[in-house]
Amino acid sequence: MSAYDDLMAFQRETSALGEIAGRLGWDQETVMPRGAAPQRAEEMAAIEAVLHARRSDPRVAEWLDAADPQDAVGQAQLREIRRSYERTVKVPADLATAIARVTSAAQGTWAQARADEDVAAFLPALSEVVALKREEGAALAQGGDIYDAMVEDYEPYTTGSQIAEIFDHMRPRLVALRAAVLDKPASAELTGRFDELVQMGLSQKLAVTFGYDLNTGRIDKAVHPFSSGSGQDVRITTRTTEIDPFNCFYSTIHEVGHAAYEQGIDPAYALSPLGRGVSMGVHESQSRIYENQLGRSRSFTGWLFGQMKDAFGDFGIADEDAFYATVNGVHNGYIRTEADEVQYNLHIMLRFDLERALMAGDLQVGDLETAWNDRFKADFGYAVDKPSNGCLQDVHWSVGLFGYFPTYSLGNVYAGCLYQALRTAVPDLDTQLANGDTSGATTWLRENVQQHGGFYTPRETIQRASGIEPGPDPLLGYLEQKFGALFDL
Amino acid sequence: MSAYDDLMAFQRETSALGEIAGRLGWDQETVMPRGAAPQRAEEMAAIEAVLHARRSDPRVAEWLDAADPQDAVGQAQLREIRRSYERTVKVPADLATAIARVTSAAQGTWAQARADEDVAAFLPALSEVVALKREEGAALAQGGDIYDAMVEDYEPYTTGSQIAEIFDHMRPRLVALRAAVLDKPASAELTGRFDELVQMGLSQKLAVTFGYDLNTGRIDKAVHPFSSGSGQDVRITTRTTEIDPFNCFYSTIHEVGHAAYEQGIDPAYALSPLGRGVSMGVHESQSRIYENQLGRSRSFTGWLFGQMKDAFGDFGIADEDAFYATVNGVHNGYIRTEADEVQYNLHIMLRFDLERALMAGDLQVGDLETAWNDRFKADFGYAVDKPSNGCLQDVHWSVGLFGYFPTYSLGNVYAGCLYQALRTAVPDLDTQLANGDTSGATTWLRENVQQHGGFYTPRETIQRASGIEPGPDPLLGYLEQKFGALFDL
Repeated sequence: MSAYDDLMAFQRETSALGEIAGRLGWDQETVMPRGAAPQRAEEMAAIEAVLHARRSDPRVAEWLDAADPQDAVGQAQLREIRRSYERTVKVPADLATAIARVTSAAQGTWAQARADEDVAAFLPALSEVVALKREEGAALAQGGDIYDAMVEDYEPYTTGSQIAEIFDHMRPRLVALRAAVLDKPASAELTGRFDELVQMGLSQKLAVTFGYDLNTGRIDKAVHPFSSGSGQDVRITTRTTEIDPFNCFYSTIHEVGHAAYEQGIDPAYALSPLGRGVSMGVHESQSRIYENQLGRSRSFTGWLFGQMKDAFGDFGIADEDAFYATVNGVHNGYIRTEADEVQYNLHIMLRFDLERALMAGDLQVGDLETAWNDRFKADFGYAVDKPSNGCLQDVHWSVGLFGYFPTYSLGNVYAGCLYQALRTAVPDLDTQLANGDTSGATTWLRENVQQHGGFYTPRETIQRASGIEPGPDPLLGYLEQKFGALFDL
Repeated sequence: MSAYDDLMAFQRETSALGEIAGRLGWDQETVMPRGAAPQRAEEMAAIEAVLHARRSDPRVAEWLDAADPQDAVGQAQLREIRRSYERTVKVPADLATAIARVTSAAQGTWAQARADEDVAAFLPALSEVVALKREEGAALAQGGDIYDAMVEDYEPYTTGSQIAEIFDHMRPRLVALRAAVLDKPASAELTGRFDELVQMGLSQKLAVTFGYDLNTGRIDKAVHPFSSGSGQDVRITTRTTEIDPFNCFYSTIHEVGHAAYEQGIDPAYALSPLGRGVSMGVHESQSRIYENQLGRSRSFTGWLFGQMKDAFGDFGIADEDAFYATVNGVHNGYIRTEADEVQYNLHIMLRFDLERALMAGDLQVGDLETAWNDRFKADFGYAVDKPSNGCLQDVHWSVGLFGYFPTYSLGNVYAGCLYQALRTAVPDLDTQLANGDTSGATTWLRENVQQHGGFYTPRETIQRASGIEPGPDPLLGYLEQKFGALFDL
């Protein structure tokens, strides 16, 4: 056995244990008995401790020094193992423990503060989290930019400045589009009741339509839909409410995008660092292109309209065009997770600028609410009415997720690049989608993006697939054209 | 921190990881996508390797040497940790690996041989398993009895000779009872169709009726019903077939017996060696007394008859007495898992004597089929018709489970002792059960058996609860009385 073989065998076991930890998370959100929560916390802590010990095992450093693979795959594996190892050993154990303890408590404090509409009650906890995360960022950055070091956890090989350049280019055009669209009369909204079992049935059909392999996956319900796992066990969740079947259907399609990425990775990478989606941004590019560019297209919604009529009978929408307008309605709103394609990225850019300033020390926690509300008014045109609709709406900061938000919009940007290339590669895409056939699109995505897993860096992955340097113009052009046509701009 | 505290903190993490491994098993049998099996095998191997490393960690030996708890609980914890540690380090790692590899393959060989009714095809694999298990037994016994060392894994502090003494006392009376009963006309059998969703609904009601706490548990379907987990997450499974609702209901009650044991253990023992049922035999005593002495009693079946009429309408059984006779029907049959209270223990004793002889070297694998068939004819009165109804029917030996079978009948013996004491402690038991109220029985069992977890040894546990030295007479008396009355003997 060479040092490389030893390292990869060790890594394979670590990946298998990581899959187990991920599946515990799935279990917790879907089937776990409510009363099991305290014991589950201990179980999670125990497996995380095992994983941490393996990721920082001194033998990894020795193997990394001694290994000398000659092939590109081996070198990419080493690149990722080295990145993970160095990240792990840079953070002192007592700091990692303090972050785990403080964020666990802060999440509860945040939930209560949001329920009470009491920003002040959350600020002490947030201050603690920010201080610890800045300390962690400094340990990771080793003299470099703290926020860049945090982004690295979710979108490796990408800096805050690169993201800022993209976002600063997007913001004025999105603000202008949003303003133009919101002056227009709103489309119809659904008013009926939609049986939840029937929703789940059509949900499963949609998942299969988008190429989800139920032989290595399953669909359950969860409060917040998610996708989980890699390799041969990739599960998705969705949710149902009687009055809003679109929530169920588009949650399903979105999660299928994530799951199809994991299911589409070259099996040769299974249980290795290359055997998972390469970044949150590229992951989100798959979920978004499935959900939006494909799932909310005029052609596909025409097919979906027929499916819904078959499933629910007449549900108050007259024809395909009205259905398309309803699916793509743009409405005033405060909540990121409920935002449409036009407004979603504005929510993200707001958070990106604020959290980057917090990490840089340019914004103090005590000034956060004012900064949030000022920025919201500037970009959306109306004022935040209460903290739960403003700076208390997201869980992320309470649990220490800084550097995560921008990956949502990077995913949209990447999806824009991919969609532009896809339209060229599959000229009859609209005809296929109008027949409920996504195979042209999903096959192209699997071959050009998904199969590569972590082999290329995120930007390389998108650049190679789309044939262009990743940037926001394709997304902006797509949005302006789509909503320009929908709203007669 | 004292050595004892260090040891218990380490042990607590090990127990938490053990819970995770158990839950992976639950996942595999209930919700896992079919195509995930190969990856799951790697995941299980990875967590088992972690557990093995912890159980044989040299620090455990140091802590065991240094720890000196003054209280009875601490001493019981040490007793169990020492037992586990010594067991783990006695078996050479390469032997453990060989057993895992050979039994994994042998299970497949066995399944194929059973399907083909081909004993000869299974014998080479079984020979390998027997040889390796004898080697393991010799390593564990260190000059003592090999079979005793195997029993220790499932029924600690209990020897093959002790079991043989009990079984040899039971056999003639059970053979006589079986012969007498089978000369009698058979009771009615169910002929209707029973909606499987309605079965699951009544199944859940039965589980709650027997004290199962759904706040820390859940009920799913599985091919072979089982109970899984301890502490705050104890799950059960059952199964449904349209023509046999009793299979569903009594599987549920049986598994609730196991689960109630785990849920009933003193929470102070959570995630420690004392926080699990003390042995397979005592575990089975709980499942059996729930299922048989309580669940198949005249009084409880009277209540269940009413429940089934409410759920299914008229289903072809005239009254409570006929229902009681149907639930307790005794029929010729070859299969252990389908056997009734009268015949079940005869199946076990047959296996016990044969596997003990295999381990002692007194029986050769090549002579197994003849030995099985001769013994079956002697005890049951008719001949085995095909290997799948004979020595190929059980998976146990193919996967190396020697010493496990007798715990099923020990469970019945222990249930007999407990039931005798319970009837004295709860004089109006029949009145309660006739009203679907099991609380008198289950409270008594929780207080006298379940809460103690692993604190006492198995025999001590039963002795203290029942007030007598555990032996077969109470069970035999119960069976002779019950079936004597049912069949007018």
